[in-house]
Amino acid sequence: MDKKKFVGVIGGSQCSKKEAQLAEEVGRQLARRGAILVCGGLGGIMKAVCKGASSAGGTTIGIIPGNDRQAANPYVQIPIVTGLGEARNVIVVKSVQAVIAVGGSYGTLSEISYALKNSIPVIGLNTWSLARNGRQDKSIIAAQSPAEAVAKALDSVTAPKSKE
Amino acid sequence: MDKKKFVGVIGGSQCSKKEAQLAEEVGRQLARRGAILVCGGLGGIMKAVCKGASSAGGTTIGIIPGNDRQAANPYVQIPIVTGLGEARNVIVVKSVQAVIAVGGSYGTLSEISYALKNSIPVIGLNTWSLARNGRQDKSIIAAQSPAEAVAKALDSVTAPKSKE
Amino acid sequence: MDKKKFVGVIGGSQCSKKEAQLAEEVGRQLARRGAILVCGGLGGIMKAVCKGASSAGGTTIGIIPGNDRQAANPYVQIPIVTGLGEARNVIVVKSVQAVIAVGGSYGTLSEISYALKNSIPVIGLNTWSLARNGRQDKSIIAAQSPAEAVAKALDSVTAPKSKE
Amino acid sequence: MDKKKFVGVIGGSQCSKKEAQLAEEVGRQLARRGAILVCGGLGGIMKAVCKGASSAGGTTIGIIPGNDRQAANPYVQIPIVTGLGEARNVIVVKSVQAVIAVGGSYGTLSEISYALKNSIPVIGLNTWSLARNGRQDKSIIAAQSPAEAVAKALDSVTAPKSKE
Repeated sequence: MDKKKFVGVIGGSQCSKKEAQLAEEVGRQLARRGAILVCGGLGGIMKAVCKGASSAGGTTIGIIPGNDRQAANPYVQIPIVTGLGEARNVIVVKSVQAVIAVGGSYGTLSEISYALKNSIPVIGLNTWSLARNGRQDKSIIAAQSPAEAVAKALDSVTAPKSKE
Repeated sequence: MDKKKFVGVIGGSQCSKKEAQLAEEVGRQLARRGAILVCGGLGGIMKAVCKGASSAGGTTIGIIPGNDRQAANPYVQIPIVTGLGEARNVIVVKSVQAVIAVGGSYGTLSEISYALKNSIPVIGLNTWSLARNGRQDKSIIAAQSPAEAVAKALDSVTAPKSKE
Repeated sequence: MDKKKFVGVIGGSQCSKKEAQLAEEVGRQLARRGAILVCGGLGGIMKAVCKGASSAGGTTIGIIPGNDRQAANPYVQIPIVTGLGEARNVIVVKSVQAVIAVGGSYGTLSEISYALKNSIPVIGLNTWSLARNGRQDKSIIAAQSPAEAVAKALDSVTAPKSKE
Repeated sequence: MDKKKFVGVIGGSQCSKKEAQLAEEVGRQLARRGAILVCGGLGGIMKAVCKGASSAGGTTIGIIPGNDRQAANPYVQIPIVTGLGEARNVIVVKSVQAVIAVGGSYGTLSEISYALKNSIPVIGLNTWSLARNGRQDKSIIAAQSPAEAVAKALDSVTAPKSKE
């Protein structure tokens, strides 16, 4: 079936200019390296990463929470319309083989949680860090740049973690 | 955004040889006419229509009910993994601008229902017919051949029905 | 666990006065016979059946499509808030052991379809009738009165159908 | 409509003996104070809290991820069967007015995230702590005992936060 790698990029529908630049560069790098981008399809980080991927000839998929395909940002080539609201977050995560989180608020944190629960690698750029019952949880793999985030994401697909 | 037309093809995961031939031809015609195919991603009608579309160079999207992307049939190029079970039927319908039903059982009927509720045109090939409180419901547009079904589906997108 | 029987009542959010009277009587009968009512929680048939059940001291559960518990009709005692839109229909059906359909449009038809797919008995009062590929489908059990519908629904739980 | 307060209790399907004791006491206290319990309906924390609530005469609702009502723990009085897998987490959260987290792993973290996103207060007992982009996030309200957790949860309902 699919030989292409599917990578999710998650982050807020509102973001700083710097975060948008990071996301756009993540999109470009993913496209150049032949990965298919899956995201939530709306604005902010989602729009920036789709813009970057499109500009480099990549394929962009947006999993839309509402009922209207027109709600997708203009760089989404394949809108998947769910009508499920925030429950669509689980689909963004399950449809990919690695996730890159750029910044993000509580919606992004729900996606990080679902990914970790499903043993899908999460690479983080300026995003959440976690501690459970007072002990740090190191599951989110830190990256310092878009290029490093994409490299780590694609490497993690090549060497899949065993399911918990 | 998307200038391409998105068409859903629905039908049983088990089907007769004749139904599979109909679905494969529907897939070929959709691809030749430049439409993107969305289906439930599994076997039977779904596999046949993906095979047809792939053979003619089309794009195939499969909205998978389970958690495993490997469950997609081998002709699905873009698997969307939902983990939602039968609730994924609503996504197949909402993601498209017209639906073609080939045969089908109760799962297909749920998709026809969702499409009609959302004013998405439904073209039927050897599928369900409906009566409400003793009066026939003519909302399913009958077609006699794959070519006619595809033509009617694509025509219905060009001239969108007003929302109920 | 639960010794009580859970029965779903489905129908349109808009309905005729006569249909509302039927639904209210269905609710009363369910409550008198000790069944717990599950419905979609909104207006029309859903409000009428909850009113009837509440008036007879029954328990009413409403599976709400939106995000606001205040959207439940005033006779819902237990609102379950899904935010899933129409995909919540599948929960109404899966949470019960028998379904009574009163009138209804395409949303109701989606619920009938899900119930039949899951081998959950469907009792119909003035509702849809089905034919597949030209042959009548007799899976919906017709009832002529609320009392008959409730009796048939509760009897069907006592003698469960084997799974398809 | 509902004058009763609905409180969610979340935590792992596997937990330590101490965590189970905490959860059972949370359930008892919720029931004594008249709140209705909503949880994920399975084992571990979910079973313990339902046991506690039932023992004190409370009402227990379990939002089940699978398709089988028999999967609910024996202290669930009202099983809601979703078939949605992990996407059911969003329903547990949206159906309540406050959430108490006891321990928990990534599934619990997804529920905490959804609650915070929806401005639903989260009280934590030995659970996750969060930092975003290097700065601590104090949104989870810490409690040192079941009684304190229940008191803070019920107080937070009386004085609802404004929606973001």
